[in-house]
Amino acid sequence: MLNKKFIINLFGLVLMFESLFMLLCGGVSLFYGEDDLMAFLYAALITFSFGFFPWLMTRNVKKDLIKREGYIVVTLVWVIMSVFGSLPFIFSGYIPRFTDAFFETISGFTTTGASILEDIEALPHGVLFWRSTTHFIGGMGIIVLAVAILPYFGFGGMQLYNAEAAGVTNDKLHPRITQTAKSLWGIYVSLILLETVFLMFGGMPLFDALCHSFGTIASGGFSTKNTSLAGYSPYIQYVVVLFMIFAGTNFTLFYFAWKGKWQKIKQNGEFKIYLYIIGIVSLIVAVSLIFTEHYGIEKAFRDSLFQVVSILTSTGFATADYTAWHGSLTFIFFILMFSGACAGSTSGGIKIMRHNILIRNSMLEFKRMTHPLAVISLRINKKVIPKEVVFKVLAFVMIYMIIFSLGSLSLTFLGLEFDAAMGAAATTMGGIGPGLGSVGPVSNFAHVAIAGKWILSLLMLLGRLELFSVLILFSPEFWRNN
Amino acid sequence: MLNKKFIINLFGLVLMFESLFMLLCGGVSLFYGEDDLMAFLYAALITFSFGFFPWLMTRNVKKDLIKREGYIVVTLVWVIMSVFGSLPFIFSGYIPRFTDAFFETISGFTTTGASILEDIEALPHGVLFWRSTTHFIGGMGIIVLAVAILPYFGFGGMQLYNAEAAGVTNDKLHPRITQTAKSLWGIYVSLILLETVFLMFGGMPLFDALCHSFGTIASGGFSTKNTSLAGYSPYIQYVVVLFMIFAGTNFTLFYFAWKGKWQKIKQNGEFKIYLYIIGIVSLIVAVSLIFTEHYGIEKAFRDSLFQVVSILTSTGFATADYTAWHGSLTFIFFILMFSGACAGSTSGGIKIMRHNILIRNSMLEFKRMTHPLAVISLRINKKVIPKEVVFKVLAFVMIYMIIFSLGSLSLTFLGLEFDAAMGAAATTMGGIGPGLGSVGPVSNFAHVAIAGKWILSLLMLLGRLELFSVLILFSPEFWRNN
Repeated sequence: MLNKKFIINLFGLVLMFESLFMLLCGGVSLFYGEDDLMAFLYAALITFSFGFFPWLMTRNVKKDLIKREGYIVVTLVWVIMSVFGSLPFIFSGYIPRFTDAFFETISGFTTTGASILEDIEALPHGVLFWRSTTHFIGGMGIIVLAVAILPYFGFGGMQLYNAEAAGVTNDKLHPRITQTAKSLWGIYVSLILLETVFLMFGGMPLFDALCHSFGTIASGGFSTKNTSLAGYSPYIQYVVVLFMIFAGTNFTLFYFAWKGKWQKIKQNGEFKIYLYIIGIVSLIVAVSLIFTEHYGIEKAFRDSLFQVVSILTSTGFATADYTAWHGSLTFIFFILMFSGACAGSTSGGIKIMRHNILIRNSMLEFKRMTHPLAVISLRINKKVIPKEVVFKVLAFVMIYMIIFSLGSLSLTFLGLEFDAAMGAAATTMGGIGPGLGSVGPVSNFAHVAIAGKWILSLLMLLGRLELFSVLILFSPEFWRNN
Repeated sequence: MLNKKFIINLFGLVLMFESLFMLLCGGVSLFYGEDDLMAFLYAALITFSFGFFPWLMTRNVKKDLIKREGYIVVTLVWVIMSVFGSLPFIFSGYIPRFTDAFFETISGFTTTGASILEDIEALPHGVLFWRSTTHFIGGMGIIVLAVAILPYFGFGGMQLYNAEAAGVTNDKLHPRITQTAKSLWGIYVSLILLETVFLMFGGMPLFDALCHSFGTIASGGFSTKNTSLAGYSPYIQYVVVLFMIFAGTNFTLFYFAWKGKWQKIKQNGEFKIYLYIIGIVSLIVAVSLIFTEHYGIEKAFRDSLFQVVSILTSTGFATADYTAWHGSLTFIFFILMFSGACAGSTSGGIKIMRHNILIRNSMLEFKRMTHPLAVISLRINKKVIPKEVVFKVLAFVMIYMIIFSLGSLSLTFLGLEFDAAMGAAATTMGGIGPGLGSVGPVSNFAHVAIAGKWILSLLMLLGRLELFSVLILFSPEFWRNN
């Protein structure tokens, strides 16, 4: 039996929580004296009502959640928050159509950063702040999801770090989350505040600094400017690069750094590969830019580093249009869309840990071929990776690629070009933002057909929740188990 | 110690064998009284000499080949035959540049069918026949490779059928091949003769019928006409479809059919999926053609079926230009390029069996998630597939995709567009022929830069030899083992 009442109780809490943030944005609106104040009050009132009454009626229920209910909650919470989160956009009249508003909101909550807005700077401050707040809330959710919930479900990148979490027998979800969540949120908020200070030091006003910090640390990518970060100083661009790199780092490493356990950070193979990828790919792109686009050395280095880090960490900020560069560079960015950064970060996509496991396991085949009778196991950081974990990772990547193909295919049916369709599917699944062709960094998703926007919204949700949390709800096994 | 002398002895034999086919083409040239006769005589003389003397000097050597030498022979034999096979093209002056001639020849021997020729009909009959003969020889080689040699090496699609072949302890390569090869070649030649008769019955002259049959059963795709099969009657097109389907079928099924073991054919899951894919995808494409291109029903059905079967079986004949159809259909063909047909056929690419194993193993994760304590094994046709086999298949697909990505990337560096680069890499690795964009079905590879042609030649070789046979030669493990 599903504990439906507790699920309703939780959703009630979440909506009340969401309405508080809407009120906060109403405060921003009041401060700037703009026309979106009433939109926030109405949206907050409706959202609060839809949260408060169900919560009130179920508040005495047994507060136990088993795994199956956990799956349902995790997926639906993202959808429900996006539905109500669309209200400020609709009520304010700045994104009148529900499809567009929902797309923008789920893009925010999944920290994707893909936008249907053609003129961002036309929005009032309150709406802009709500847009960036969806990143802030989404990022918080993801951290808990990646480090506490998914390993408990038995999958997700972090599970690969401590395999014992996968086999946990205690079926109660609650205590585990709250305990881990607090210290992670501490790190998350500290990083945001730190970046805000650094950005303001470079001359960015508090409002824009906060919005961009939300976008950076959540690896979201919504900016307050039409040209994203292209119009800012090199100092500010380098600050954003640094914090994007932080956002793509496994958050437990900050915890280790805080505790002074530098050895643990040094031992983290994924982090090392992450830095190597950034270094090597940025260098290749920078050198290519010097030769093909005749950029100066500093600009080539900065534009390359910014774009590589932005796509790799699935942030999606831009200081240049990589689709306007030589075709080979565009292709490099397309491949990067499938990489993702470290497990346990706010970044989306497949993540380096998974690639590392699959590629190294595949390379072992050569050893197995030359020593057919030996038992050769995959070891990472001197630990044997169980076959079951490799299978889980394999399943993830296979299903990722199948959904990517089906997603791209359905977008071509709706009229997107070959590169735009693949770029759109890759960037939404990876939680990045800009794609290729007509949905590249200097374009937006406004022109995509309505059905296409729903498909892309689904891809964002699937990618963000590491596929399985969503897909298992469609598996007959899941419901048969009752 | 490598048995170098026996390797040389084998290459000598192979070259003498190749020179005989050149003489045969000289005969064709003589028959038609055309200007390419001397080219064949010179080419045959040179090829024979490079074969005969090394063979003569090593003929008393111990005729034992162990696995490691097998790998070397398998890869190099394709390269050496392609080098000498280029001579008739060069000497006749019809493909004067070595790069082009080598590309055309290895495309023939790997039964890819990608061409650099802009006007096929300008070639004399002898050269045309040599071009198609490379398919004939290549197809023969592949059958033996797929059914006898690769399973012995411990990989390849067929190994999945009889897992015991993978763990074979007898280290002698020789007896196994000759025994299996004969019956397979019987089937191969019978199919070619049968198709030739059917084609002649539809009014095609013997010469063209033979060439097209070589191209069909080897799943090659070289035609004698500039418009491939577009100019022929519906009857002939349907005949070619039927025989392309045969070419994509596991050849052991013909053996079972011959022996009357129909039950064995019915039980073959891969064959069933193969027919389903053809049926379903053709139907989708046909219906789309009726609506988007306003084709008549028969033409929509025929053009769709022909193109789907041609790409799926990696043949590459064409009766229509799928890149001129709606973008979604082009994308379907792009995805089909990664499918391949049945293991143990002459078709290239990843093959259905491998997809089946990986997808079904991935789907099991949902079961494993809802029953975390149960041991759930992959079963196909009621047989448990060992984890080691899944890992081999995984390694194959991972490395395939990595090489595809690197291949596409290097082609974009050489100036190919996004779609053309991916299409070219996919079609050469899959052994298909036509790609997308500027290398689509109505275009050719003439305009690709020299470096690009070498990259594509390498991709053809890698794809055809199921990656590992070639890649293991670059593995330090392989040479350390000595």
